[in-house]
Amino acid sequence: MSAYAKPVEILIDELGRLPGIGPKSAQRIAFHLLKADAVDARRLADAIVTMKETVSFCERCFNVAESAECDICRDPRREQGVVCVVEEPKDISAIEKTGAFRGRYHVLQGVINMLEGIGPEQLRIKELALRVASEDITEVILCMNPNIEGETTAAFIATKILQPFSITVTRLASGLPVGGDLEYADELTLGRAIEGRQHLG
Amino acid sequence: MSAYAKPVEILIDELGRLPGIGPKSAQRIAFHLLKADAVDARRLADAIVTMKETVSFCERCFNVAESAECDICRDPRREQGVVCVVEEPKDISAIEKTGAFRGRYHVLQGVINMLEGIGPEQLRIKELALRVASEDITEVILCMNPNIEGETTAAFIATKILQPFSITVTRLASGLPVGGDLEYADELTLGRAIEGRQHLG
Repeated sequence: MSAYAKPVEILIDELGRLPGIGPKSAQRIAFHLLKADAVDARRLADAIVTMKETVSFCERCFNVAESAECDICRDPRREQGVVCVVEEPKDISAIEKTGAFRGRYHVLQGVINMLEGIGPEQLRIKELALRVASEDITEVILCMNPNIEGETTAAFIATKILQPFSITVTRLASGLPVGGDLEYADELTLGRAIEGRQHLG
Repeated sequence: MSAYAKPVEILIDELGRLPGIGPKSAQRIAFHLLKADAVDARRLADAIVTMKETVSFCERCFNVAESAECDICRDPRREQGVVCVVEEPKDISAIEKTGAFRGRYHVLQGVINMLEGIGPEQLRIKELALRVASEDITEVILCMNPNIEGETTAAFIATKILQPFSITVTRLASGLPVGGDLEYADELTLGRAIEGRQHLG
């Protein structure tokens, strides 16, 4: 006899695949949902399905998008010449909140991490090169997180990818604590880091 | 303009309602699902819906059940006279693993916690009294977690509910560390605690 009914076991198993959810958390969440109103549980299931059906990634910058291109790429008021390269879509919202940046973005969807087997070819780096080659871009700001993987990725893009183009390549000013996470920086610090961005190479 | 596409915001909001999931975790899980295969995300949504549609609580003991009564209540080989009262269905699987108990269970679905506004009437205590009055029960073992809320609940049930009945009321032997959680006890310790259960009152 299994410990619980099969459908509960299956749900615990599926929840356990989510990032940051261990077996005990998965069990706690499953029993929470079992006790919850059917309507509430259904709303969570529907939210997952609806998101997968209506949201994907911007064809240009790989930000979250509800149509072929994201709101920022389609906004004619955004500066066309400056592109901020970030790791994840959530970093865009952190930068947008500062109000210090009026250009567009490019989301790598990760960073180079050889220990986890993530190389440049798994990221949207090729697509960044293509944009720099075809769009009227004059400056690329590398906004990776200030940690080992972020610095490695920024150095790779600066030296191996953007070197051939006659554009300005900058990165965020120091001011962010090293080893920290861009997502947790306060708006003032992040805003200053954008204003004081430094030339790379 | 909201930080993300609306369906992403909605999912983050729904995930944030789950126990132990803060706003940052909810965001991380939502983006994980956004990047995941549609099939994988769908499987999670389906697991939630399937569980809610096929699993509910046993009419007799309030354990998890796929039919009107749970597997344990329907098993004729279980001792009918001894009932182990636990807080949650997950505690049953912890006790079953010890092999030290052959009776049946009663799940309170929580503990008395006045700070959180949970009184006896929110728990399955009335149903326990009904079972003791109508079934051929000779002993009730109170298996609440050995912490303040658990002890309070056990004391309430022993003195206010079971006192009028001429049955034996016991609780788990000490051996479990006080302030700990029944769910995390090793099988040997929990098994000994069942064997060495003590009279209450």
